[in-house]
Amino acid sequence: MKTSKDKNRIPEATMRRLPRYFLQIKRLLDEGSRYVSSKKLGDYLGVKGTQIRKDLSYFGVFGKARYGYETLSLAKAIKKILGLTKQYKMVIVGAGNIGRALASYSGFHTCGFDVKYIFDIDDKKIGNIISGVKVYDFNKIEEILDKGEIDIAIISTPENKALQAAQRLKDNGVNAFYNFTSAELNSIEDVFIEDAEISHGIFKLAHRLRGKWPRKESD
Amino acid sequence: MKTSKDKNRIPEATMRRLPRYFLQIKRLLDEGSRYVSSKKLGDYLGVKGTQIRKDLSYFGVFGKARYGYETLSLAKAIKKILGLTKQYKMVIVGAGNIGRALASYSGFHTCGFDVKYIFDIDDKKIGNIISGVKVYDFNKIEEILDKGEIDIAIISTPENKALQAAQRLKDNGVNAFYNFTSAELNSIEDVFIEDAEISHGIFKLAHRLRGKWPRKESD
Repeated sequence: MKTSKDKNRIPEATMRRLPRYFLQIKRLLDEGSRYVSSKKLGDYLGVKGTQIRKDLSYFGVFGKARYGYETLSLAKAIKKILGLTKQYKMVIVGAGNIGRALASYSGFHTCGFDVKYIFDIDDKKIGNIISGVKVYDFNKIEEILDKGEIDIAIISTPENKALQAAQRLKDNGVNAFYNFTSAELNSIEDVFIEDAEISHGIFKLAHRLRGKWPRKESD
Repeated sequence: MKTSKDKNRIPEATMRRLPRYFLQIKRLLDEGSRYVSSKKLGDYLGVKGTQIRKDLSYFGVFGKARYGYETLSLAKAIKKILGLTKQYKMVIVGAGNIGRALASYSGFHTCGFDVKYIFDIDDKKIGNIISGVKVYDFNKIEEILDKGEIDIAIISTPENKALQAAQRLKDNGVNAFYNFTSAELNSIEDVFIEDAEISHGIFKLAHRLRGKWPRKESD
């Protein structure tokens, strides 16, 4: 297991930019662009060309002099870096407002993250179809999920149900959680947890409005 | 304007943890806890006590030996640090799935971010009430908003409408945007833009599942 001191570790800011590179390059592909320079890509994204070249060089991806990057190869390379050559199977637990919105969030599907099941405990929701995915009874999860079938669970239950739901998912072989509640799931051992930080962005904006942070972040 | 090299700049990882500290301390206050040690707070949040003390020391906040932090003072201090002694007025533009979910996201209201208006261009949505907030016609925005009335706009339109919507908001005095689309808004000058990174979290989980990132991040 790597640590933050590992020199080979890719900077988090780089990882954060890669999806944006990927989506923009896909748009360019759709428009029929064969080549894109780091400068041009940077102009679209508000990132310096030198930063883009540095980011891609971590993965051994380099452009050609005068032409820049070949768009299709670059899309493939980033897809591989992001691990999107594999499909990831997801469940959404909690079919409230956030759960429903995430079920229809196109960004997941575009990048190979497929929502296979939605779970809830509300009889009025069980059996409904949300964005093509059926809502199942969470209390019957053992009958529905095969062990190892699901890679990632999105937790969008009420806050006071989140920990219990995640633990039950873990007991059914799910090891990675994308937590959209403000509950703390850290007491579950040996799983990957990622907290969605909807409030984080708004706090940053508030800070910048008050002049405490730079207008644009360097990363 | 500060740069990333400014020594007084608070680390982003610290800023990211503060809302979590704040929410947990609020929970402790609700339970009637008068004091909380950095160790105990850390156990709730999966953060080391030393890290919490370091984070809070940036702002001149220190606990007492043996007792730790006085819960109420700490809540007030973090509230001040986060700029939550002020109320922020928001609009949501785009009453689709994400926009509706954000309108009912309790995390905003709890922290002093109030959604004043929701805008859409769909006649079927205009006039509806979502979580107590009325949906107005975006094409009449000039008649509805006073200049300087709104601090932050959440953009949750379809991707191909986002840039145009944000530009029109800017023309009506809005200078900070929380962008929930995958559109790039960087071409708008002199505004604060924060991109919501829903896909970012899922990419990080995918990476960790593939063993490329540490199970738990150091920050």
